[in-house]
Amino acid sequence: MSRINAARLIADLRSLARFGQAGSGVDRTAFSPQDNAARQWLRGRMAEAGLDAQIDRVGNVVGRYPAVRRAVVIGSHTDTVPKGGWLDGAYGVICGLEIARSRLERGTDPGLGVDVASFQDEEGTFLPFLGSRSFCGDLTEADLAAVKSRDGTPLTAALASAAYGGAVVRYDPARHTAYLEAHIEQGPRLEAEKRRIGVVSGIVGIRRLRIFTKGQADHAGTTPMTMRKDAGAALLRLAARIVAEFPAKAGAETVWNIGRIEFRPGAANVVPAEAEMVLEIRDTGLPKLDELERCVAEWIADGARQGPVSIASEPIARILPTAMSPEIGALIAAAAREHRAEPLAMPSGAGHDAMVLGRFMPAAMLFVPSIGGRSHDVVEDTSEADLALGCEVLAATVEKLARSSG
Amino acid sequence: MSRINAARLIADLRSLARFGQAGSGVDRTAFSPQDNAARQWLRGRMAEAGLDAQIDRVGNVVGRYPAVRRAVVIGSHTDTVPKGGWLDGAYGVICGLEIARSRLERGTDPGLGVDVASFQDEEGTFLPFLGSRSFCGDLTEADLAAVKSRDGTPLTAALASAAYGGAVVRYDPARHTAYLEAHIEQGPRLEAEKRRIGVVSGIVGIRRLRIFTKGQADHAGTTPMTMRKDAGAALLRLAARIVAEFPAKAGAETVWNIGRIEFRPGAANVVPAEAEMVLEIRDTGLPKLDELERCVAEWIADGARQGPVSIASEPIARILPTAMSPEIGALIAAAAREHRAEPLAMPSGAGHDAMVLGRFMPAAMLFVPSIGGRSHDVVEDTSEADLALGCEVLAATVEKLARSSG
Repeated sequence: MSRINAARLIADLRSLARFGQAGSGVDRTAFSPQDNAARQWLRGRMAEAGLDAQIDRVGNVVGRYPAVRRAVVIGSHTDTVPKGGWLDGAYGVICGLEIARSRLERGTDPGLGVDVASFQDEEGTFLPFLGSRSFCGDLTEADLAAVKSRDGTPLTAALASAAYGGAVVRYDPARHTAYLEAHIEQGPRLEAEKRRIGVVSGIVGIRRLRIFTKGQADHAGTTPMTMRKDAGAALLRLAARIVAEFPAKAGAETVWNIGRIEFRPGAANVVPAEAEMVLEIRDTGLPKLDELERCVAEWIADGARQGPVSIASEPIARILPTAMSPEIGALIAAAAREHRAEPLAMPSGAGHDAMVLGRFMPAAMLFVPSIGGRSHDVVEDTSEADLALGCEVLAATVEKLARSSG
Repeated sequence: MSRINAARLIADLRSLARFGQAGSGVDRTAFSPQDNAARQWLRGRMAEAGLDAQIDRVGNVVGRYPAVRRAVVIGSHTDTVPKGGWLDGAYGVICGLEIARSRLERGTDPGLGVDVASFQDEEGTFLPFLGSRSFCGDLTEADLAAVKSRDGTPLTAALASAAYGGAVVRYDPARHTAYLEAHIEQGPRLEAEKRRIGVVSGIVGIRRLRIFTKGQADHAGTTPMTMRKDAGAALLRLAARIVAEFPAKAGAETVWNIGRIEFRPGAANVVPAEAEMVLEIRDTGLPKLDELERCVAEWIADGARQGPVSIASEPIARILPTAMSPEIGALIAAAAREHRAEPLAMPSGAGHDAMVLGRFMPAAMLFVPSIGGRSHDVVEDTSEADLALGCEVLAATVEKLARSSG
């Protein structure tokens, strides 16, 4: 038995992808004309489905399920990164639309509605999670007034120009029982493990450290090795220790990255005076993040004690992990098995609106495979069969929630 | 007994430093108006001293000692790096002038003359060692025609504009018995070991390798560690091996440097797709350079075998070591001891005109201390007492050579 109309799901995804179409991908950054046009289109589709739809003051598109006192929120975002893909965010929003629409058509279970949301600017053209933070009451007017885009445009100017007109729509603790978000995986695991459904155990927390050393620039030909204060070598020793020892200390799902390194002045024949690198650690568990950050701090202290080069670090990003609801996760897993898809429990290594919503209500996420693990690129894709299955499984999950709350 | 006029030596150095004076330093790049003016001044000082002085076709200023059939060449260069110091090169030239002048005044030892040379463009504004290579017949007309400065000016244009006018002056194998060069150390060793005279055992050869890895860019949050092709981590492992194992494998005087490293694309949350670094190794011994380069090649092969990231290297500079004459070095050391200065035998980690001359005749170098080890900077300096002592010791060395060849 199918609880959704898969053809309509795909057709709506294709329609949405025409706003800002860029080859096989989509360029629809938040507040761009294409993005605003997509919001108008989405509001219209919600209204056609029978939802009470509006665009709120910050651009969130919210469709309320009629005639219910309680509802789950299903959503994600319709803005993209520059030259992004057609599914990142869009999939979760259209899944919500299709599930709400199908439920309304069937007239089943009026006791639990499905409110659908497209949250503004998840990708952070102006402010990451602007829409979901606004929806959750996590942004003050002063916050909004301070935000500028990367090119310097004040958010207030973008809001004035967009003229969405509505009031701010906030979540309703008395009404909203849970948040569900379907999303493409944006990684290679489901494909590699030949699974079609991922159940997200949690969204990783992130520690991003800038680690920097300071020594002295010297002529690399005339300065004996023993007389150098080589900031580069000191940093390399620390980096090597991270690369060598992190695998044994990390958890099974921990990931880390040294994505940037630089020596100054950066000439072949000059001993580096300064060096720096950025280390990023991600895990769903706060204790593991703390433990690994402590390790690095100890190694930095070791290096500083050895001298003669100074070593220090500063946090440049610090994001808490967000737990997903294990109860709803179990319902998603059960629904997947009913559709003959053995689910994979996995963390989300990337951030999602569910990070924000999850602080205010039970939240759960479902992943579908990303072909080649690719995303944030025009090649981003997922098979139509997987897109349909993910929506079907989420629809089944909503029914289980309706029954359990009924 | 003093064989030179120390006050005149210092006065001539100060006079020369006024050409292109830049604060406490000198900006006198080859072929600049200040450089050409300094060459005219130098030719005049040589002529006043009684030398047969000319500026040759490439700008070398050569002063022939009169009425002798054999001569040592004493020289260096008067061009500087941009915002350079007042002594680098200049000291060796003015030492030669003062020694020749004093010998002519005393009328001693007419059997061995002192020819004085300022070689054009040692610092490589157009071509490193242009003057000494021309003097040694190591440059063809085709070589000269191909050279451009860093800003794209052809050397032929600079030569035409300078209009030196003379023919090319070449060294004379029948006349020239040896090359002597006094130079500031450009490093910290003499100062650190409280020595006033360094006797250069050899000029280091240089191997400069670009080592590069190629993996795959992936999202650093969503790609499990086991599925990455991390070009950065692969390069860090190799760099760490060099930092850890080179000290045991290197010779006592070997120096090496990793002065530049880069990861691409270079974002904190992207697994590096490509990484590269530049490794430089310097030693006076060819076998040691070969051995260390072989080590690195083996480690690169180890890394490449481990996969999944490709690792390779390419030579970007390869300069042979130049031996200095041990016989003349012994005479310099003996002369230093006669002046109550215990000399330090040491390699030259930087290149000098003696690298070129040393391929054609016995060559030797004497170092005087650099205050704080600094050079190629306006703060470059040496005490007047050390400048005088170095010249005195070199003058005594010339007498020893005259006696031994007499």
